[in-house]
Amino acid sequence: MDLALGEIANLVGGQLSGDAGIPISGAAIIRDANVGDITLADKLQLANQLADCRAAAVLVPPDVTPDGVPFVTVTNVHASFAKIVQHFRPHTCNQPYGVSAAAHVSPTAQLGREVVVYPTASIGDDVRVGDGVIIYPGVRILAGSRIGDNVTLFPNVVLYENTVIGNRVIIHAGAVLGAHGFGYETVDGRHKLSAQLGYVVIGDDVEIGAGTTIDRGTYGPTSIGEGTKIDNQVMIGHNCRIGRHNLLCSQVGIAGSATTGDYVVMAGQVGIRDHIDIGDRAILGAKCGVMNSVPADSVYFGYPATADREQLLKQAALSKLPEMRKQFKALQRQVAELAEKFNDAA
Amino acid sequence: MDLALGEIANLVGGQLSGDAGIPISGAAIIRDANVGDITLADKLQLANQLADCRAAAVLVPPDVTPDGVPFVTVTNVHASFAKIVQHFRPHTCNQPYGVSAAAHVSPTAQLGREVVVYPTASIGDDVRVGDGVIIYPGVRILAGSRIGDNVTLFPNVVLYENTVIGNRVIIHAGAVLGAHGFGYETVDGRHKLSAQLGYVVIGDDVEIGAGTTIDRGTYGPTSIGEGTKIDNQVMIGHNCRIGRHNLLCSQVGIAGSATTGDYVVMAGQVGIRDHIDIGDRAILGAKCGVMNSVPADSVYFGYPATADREQLLKQAALSKLPEMRKQFKALQRQVAELAEKFNDAA
Amino acid sequence: MDLALGEIANLVGGQLSGDAGIPISGAAIIRDANVGDITLADKLQLANQLADCRAAAVLVPPDVTPDGVPFVTVTNVHASFAKIVQHFRPHTCNQPYGVSAAAHVSPTAQLGREVVVYPTASIGDDVRVGDGVIIYPGVRILAGSRIGDNVTLFPNVVLYENTVIGNRVIIHAGAVLGAHGFGYETVDGRHKLSAQLGYVVIGDDVEIGAGTTIDRGTYGPTSIGEGTKIDNQVMIGHNCRIGRHNLLCSQVGIAGSATTGDYVVMAGQVGIRDHIDIGDRAILGAKCGVMNSVPADSVYFGYPATADREQLLKQAALSKLPEMRKQFKALQRQVAELAEKFNDAA
Repeated sequence: MDLALGEIANLVGGQLSGDAGIPISGAAIIRDANVGDITLADKLQLANQLADCRAAAVLVPPDVTPDGVPFVTVTNVHASFAKIVQHFRPHTCNQPYGVSAAAHVSPTAQLGREVVVYPTASIGDDVRVGDGVIIYPGVRILAGSRIGDNVTLFPNVVLYENTVIGNRVIIHAGAVLGAHGFGYETVDGRHKLSAQLGYVVIGDDVEIGAGTTIDRGTYGPTSIGEGTKIDNQVMIGHNCRIGRHNLLCSQVGIAGSATTGDYVVMAGQVGIRDHIDIGDRAILGAKCGVMNSVPADSVYFGYPATADREQLLKQAALSKLPEMRKQFKALQRQVAELAEKFNDAA
Repeated sequence: MDLALGEIANLVGGQLSGDAGIPISGAAIIRDANVGDITLADKLQLANQLADCRAAAVLVPPDVTPDGVPFVTVTNVHASFAKIVQHFRPHTCNQPYGVSAAAHVSPTAQLGREVVVYPTASIGDDVRVGDGVIIYPGVRILAGSRIGDNVTLFPNVVLYENTVIGNRVIIHAGAVLGAHGFGYETVDGRHKLSAQLGYVVIGDDVEIGAGTTIDRGTYGPTSIGEGTKIDNQVMIGHNCRIGRHNLLCSQVGIAGSATTGDYVVMAGQVGIRDHIDIGDRAILGAKCGVMNSVPADSVYFGYPATADREQLLKQAALSKLPEMRKQFKALQRQVAELAEKFNDAA
Repeated sequence: MDLALGEIANLVGGQLSGDAGIPISGAAIIRDANVGDITLADKLQLANQLADCRAAAVLVPPDVTPDGVPFVTVTNVHASFAKIVQHFRPHTCNQPYGVSAAAHVSPTAQLGREVVVYPTASIGDDVRVGDGVIIYPGVRILAGSRIGDNVTLFPNVVLYENTVIGNRVIIHAGAVLGAHGFGYETVDGRHKLSAQLGYVVIGDDVEIGAGTTIDRGTYGPTSIGEGTKIDNQVMIGHNCRIGRHNLLCSQVGIAGSATTGDYVVMAGQVGIRDHIDIGDRAILGAKCGVMNSVPADSVYFGYPATADREQLLKQAALSKLPEMRKQFKALQRQVAELAEKFNDAA
C-alpha cells in the first residue's frame, strides 16, 4: 500500500516540492509520525515542530513553507490529509443492506429502503424507519418511534417509546433518549414519580455523543433543534427545549425545562439550572454553574456564573487577595500608630 | 380521537366554563400548545401566559380563573391532565407476559409469575426473579442476582454478579450496578486492584436513572436505601451506604465509603468526598464539592462546600471585592497623605 | 458453610487468640457485621470501633491487639480477609470456554485459545482476539479491532472500528471506545463534522470503568498508557495521549489533544482543557478546572486550578473576607475621624 510522494501529490491534486520518488508508508499527525510517514502542518507554528518529527514529508497550505523536509502544498489541508489517511487505512466495514435474521423487528414496524439492521438490534411495535438508516447491534428502538432518513444509530443506543428522530442524525453508542424525567412529588414522606407521558424530538442533522442521556418531557416533547451537536456524557433534563446549531461539550448537564436559543456554545462540564433561558449565541465557559437566565450574545463563566468582565475582575481581585490582606493588616497598624501619635500630640 | 370540551370535562370529572362543543384535538403545556389543544395552568403566573397561547381551552385548579379562554376546573390538575394526554397518546407497548425464545435464560435461573423477558436479554446462573418483573431487550443479569417483585429493568441495564434488587424498583437504560470499585494498592510502581468480592443492594421503591453506575463493595454491599430516587449519570462508589428517600440529581458523584442519612437532597453535579457522612435531611446545592461530613438538617453549597450562611457571606464579599480593592487603594493613599501631613505638622 | 474460628485461622495461616470452637457464619466489614460474622480491623482506629460491632471475631495485623473479642493475627489482613469472604460467598460464574452459538462472530474474525464469548455478543469483520479473553453478553466489537490476551470485556462494552486493546485489560459494562471526536468546522452557519479516521489504543494492564467514553483520534490514535486505571463515567477526548500508571477517578473529563505524563492522579470530577499537558506525577484535586499546562510533581486544585499553596492562601483569604470587609469599613471610619480631628486641630 506504499505510495511514492509524487503519487500522493497526484492523489490530492497538490504541488510537490521535493523528490517524487520518496516512498510513503503511512500518515500521522506530527506528534505520532514515524519514519516513512507523511504528516501535516496546517499553521506556521506547527511547521516549526517539524525539525523534531520523523516524518518523510509534510502536507501544508499555501502560506506555510517548511524548511528541510519535502512538502506537498494543497488548498484544503484537512480534506487532503483525510484522503491520504483513508488510502492507508481504508474503511473495512462492508455490511450489505438488509435486515439481519438475528435482529428482532416487530411485524408492525415499517422500514425504508437501503436500511441496515445488524444482529441483536430490537425494533418495537409501530416503529417507522426511513431510507438509508444504519442500525448497529444492540440498538433498542421502543414502540411508536419515528426515525428519519440516513440516520446512524451506533451500538446499544436506546430510544424509548415515541422518540422522533430527524434526517441525517448520528447517535453514538450507549446514548439513551426518552428515559423518565426526574420529577417527584413528596406525599407522606415518599417521593412519587410525576407523569411521564412525553417523548424526545431530535431535529435534522443533530449529532449525539456516546453515553449522553436526554429525558422525555412530562406531557410532551423534550426537543433538540436542527443542526445541534452534543458531545459524550451530556445530560439534558425533561421538558428542555434546546435551540438550533448549539454546541454542547462533554459532561454538560442541563436541568429540567431550561431552554437555549440558537448557536449557543457550552464548554465541558457546564451546569444549567432548571427553568432558565440561555439566549442566542451565548457562550458558557468550561465548568461554569449557571443559576439565572443568560442574555443573548453574552459570555459567562465561573461558579456561580456571571458575565465574563465581572468574573475576570472577581478572579483578579481574588488572586491578589492574600497580598491585599497583608497590606490591609499593615495599614491597620499604620493607622493605629498614627492615631496614637495624634493622641499623644493632642 | 378528537373530543368535545364537554367530553373532556366529563373524562376528568371537572367543572366546565365555556362552550361544551369546542373540539379538542390534543393536549400540551402552554409553551408547546397548538390550535385545538387543551393546556394546563397549575398556578396563577402561568394563567397570565395564556394570552399568548394558541390553546383552545385550559385545565385549572379551583384558585385559578383564567380570562378569555374556556376552562375546566379540577382539584388535581396534574393527574387530570395526565389522563387527557393518555387519551390522545395512548401507551402502545403491549408485550404479552412470557419469556421470549430469543432471550438467554440460564436453566438454573428461577422466574416468578407474570414476568416479561424480551429478546436478547440475558439472565445468568442461579438468578431469581420475582413476580410481575419486566426485563427489556439487552438487559444483562449476571449470576447469583436476586430481583424482587414488580421491578422494571429498561434496555441494556447491567447487573453484575449477586446484585440484590428490592420490590417495585425501576432501573433505566444503560445503568450499571456492581462494577469493580476503584480501589488500588500501588506495589513496585504498578497499581494492583484490591479485592472486589462485594455486591450492590437496592432497597424497595428505588428508581435509578439512565447511565448511572453503582460499584460493588469491597467485601460486602454498596447499598441504596428504600425509596431513594437517583437521576441519570450519577456515580456511587464502592462501599457507599445511601440512606432512605434521598433525591440524587443528575451527574452527582459520591466517592467510596461515603454515607448519607435519610431524606438527603443533592442537586446536579454535586461531588462528595470518600469516607464522609452526610446527615439526615441535608440539602447540597448544585455543583458543590463536599470535603467534610455535613450535619443533619443543614444546607451546604459552594466549592469547597460550606453552610449556606457562610457561603452567602463569602460570595457577597467576593462580589464586592473589586470595588473594595479600589476603596482600599484610596484609603492607603489617604492614610499616606494623613501621615505625611501629620509628620509635616509635627 | 459455617467454619469454626480455628478453621478460619488455619485457612489464612493466622495466629488465633480466643476460642477455636466459635462458629463463624460470614464475613463483613465492621459497619455491616452481624452476629456470627468475622470482621477485620486493619488499623488501630478501627479496632476502637469493635466495642459497638456485633462480630464474633476479628482479623488483625500484628500491630493491632483488640480488646474483648477473639482475634486472628495475620501479616496481610486484606488478602486473608478476601480468602475468608470467598469461602462464604464463592464465585458462582462457571461459563465454560467456547463461543456461544448465539453470539454473532464474523467469519473473518480470528479468536485465540480458551476464549469465552457469551450469547448476543457481536464480533465484526477482521477482528482478532487473543487467548484467554472473556467477552460478556452484548459486547460489540466493530470491524478491524485487535484484542490482546487475557482481556475481560464486561456486558455491553462497545469498541468501534480498529480499536487496539493490550493484554490483561479489563473494560467495564457500557464503556464506549472509539466514538467520533467532538470536532466541528462551522461553514455557512452549520457545524460540519471534521475527519474521524482515527482509533483508540489501550496499553497493557489498563482498567476502564463502567460508562467511560474514549473518543477516536482525528487521523490517528487516542492512546492510554500501560497500567493506567480509569474509573467510571470518565470522558477522554479525541487525540488525547494519556501516560502510564495514571489514576483517573470518576467523572473526570479530559478535552481533546490534552496529554498526561506518567503516574498522574486526577481526583473525581476534574476537568482538563484541550491541548494542555499535565506533567509526570502531578496530582489534581477533586473537581478542579485546569486551564493551563501543569508542571511535573505539582499539586493543583481549585477553579481555576492553581498550585496548592497559592490556592490555600486564596481560599484562606476568601474565608476571612467577610470579617476583613467589616474591619475595612471600621478602618475607613477610623481614618475619616482621624482626618477630621487632624483638620480640626490644624
